[in-house]
Amino acid sequence: MSAITSLSNATVKAVRALHMRKERDETGLFVAEGLKNVIEGIDTGHAPQILLHGKDAADHPMMRKAVAATLGARGQVAEVTQDILAKVSRRDNPQAVVGVFRQAFAELADLDPKAATVWVALHRVRDPGNLGTIIRTADAAGCGAVILVGECCDPYSVEAVRATMGSIFAVSLVKATEAEFTAWRTSWPGSVVGTLLSATSDHRSADYRAPALVLMGNEQQGLTPDLAALCDVNVKIPMRGRADSLNLSVATGIMIYAAGG
Amino acid sequence: MSAITSLSNATVKAVRALHMRKERDETGLFVAEGLKNVIEGIDTGHAPQILLHGKDAADHPMMRKAVAATLGARGQVAEVTQDILAKVSRRDNPQAVVGVFRQAFAELADLDPKAATVWVALHRVRDPGNLGTIIRTADAAGCGAVILVGECCDPYSVEAVRATMGSIFAVSLVKATEAEFTAWRTSWPGSVVGTLLSATSDHRSADYRAPALVLMGNEQQGLTPDLAALCDVNVKIPMRGRADSLNLSVATGIMIYAAGG
Repeated sequence: MSAITSLSNATVKAVRALHMRKERDETGLFVAEGLKNVIEGIDTGHAPQILLHGKDAADHPMMRKAVAATLGARGQVAEVTQDILAKVSRRDNPQAVVGVFRQAFAELADLDPKAATVWVALHRVRDPGNLGTIIRTADAAGCGAVILVGECCDPYSVEAVRATMGSIFAVSLVKATEAEFTAWRTSWPGSVVGTLLSATSDHRSADYRAPALVLMGNEQQGLTPDLAALCDVNVKIPMRGRADSLNLSVATGIMIYAAGG
Repeated sequence: MSAITSLSNATVKAVRALHMRKERDETGLFVAEGLKNVIEGIDTGHAPQILLHGKDAADHPMMRKAVAATLGARGQVAEVTQDILAKVSRRDNPQAVVGVFRQAFAELADLDPKAATVWVALHRVRDPGNLGTIIRTADAAGCGAVILVGECCDPYSVEAVRATMGSIFAVSLVKATEAEFTAWRTSWPGSVVGTLLSATSDHRSADYRAPALVLMGNEQQGLTPDLAALCDVNVKIPMRGRADSLNLSVATGIMIYAAGG
């Protein structure tokens, strides 16, 4: 098998195009970088559609598994040059392996509240690094799903997937409009918990009835009044210094573990 | 006053050089971007040594305060072109105001354990975004200081300062070698708390005696055995999914609030 050396190769162009959200939305595909993450995808039942690798990676013992999984799912395996890996990853020091996988969104109706004691919903989250980090935390804490309410950044962007550190494959992701979320929330059997700077209950002493659904507002505005009104309880993480807010992924991590994660 | 238009202007070169750690270490200066952050610096008693601003920023009501504080401290104020702001910030859409401030490290010997109930020490932290986010959390939670043990990334790098969202001016920062930290720790009146994946105590049920000093290992290795042995108690944040660790800034946030922040 000879290596692909040209940036105008159709496969290379298709993978590079996945940096654009429009292309990801239309194809339903996304990029995961690094052999560790590719293997994590395979181990959780996701076979790569495309597997690109540098010359040196071919000898890695785990590569045989990655190649077999890709070919077994009728995917494409190709060796590429270092230059192509750098262009695909938009990095000077790219990972030696890149996998293209199928996105997997679940539906609100498919969620079983009994499957986990803590769940997370994010409203209009903006920053892909925050979203990826929250998906990693949700995985670590055993959350049932991360529900994206309203216009959110894309969990399958390269930046978000990087920040998940492999957890992109392990966590159920759901997209919902505010109206869909509002309707679905009425059937939620546990506490829906909002985090609000103006709340009076401390996040540690609130009454969290499992399964707890932690609802977080976005980086700029926090929770909107409409969504705060949907919550059974709104709590505040105490602010004792000059900073008037926490980073969203830090605040969400504190809430997930406070609510029983 | 005419605007600086040349990238070879000595002041512009001096500010751009502060992207390099060597230059920051030698001059003891750092860059804070954005009028909000510059005002935060001034409000906490730090006057800019240099204040660069775009043409449009000159009309902002808070600019008068920033200019007065800079000139009052015998600093230099200059209007610069948009192109220079972009080069100084290494961003296509730079902030309209950039301030150069003096770094302010405290000494271990100067810390008063009675001044706060929670303190943070980080060993060999690598990622400036994580460090900046932890400084922001430490500010929000009212921590006494962030102590950097061993070779850490620079809290005064542009990336770290950005992630602090203004808290760089509000939190006491200390640099210590492992030997200095080890010696100083013996006089600590409260619990020194380590976070270890192999610990058996849950982070929520551990006995935290105030003032609690939360000690975190770095992104790659976690807490080293030597440092874990220094702790009064080592705790574990439960991992219930496939992810075997949390992002460092998230884990530190959870620990700060668990320990009483």
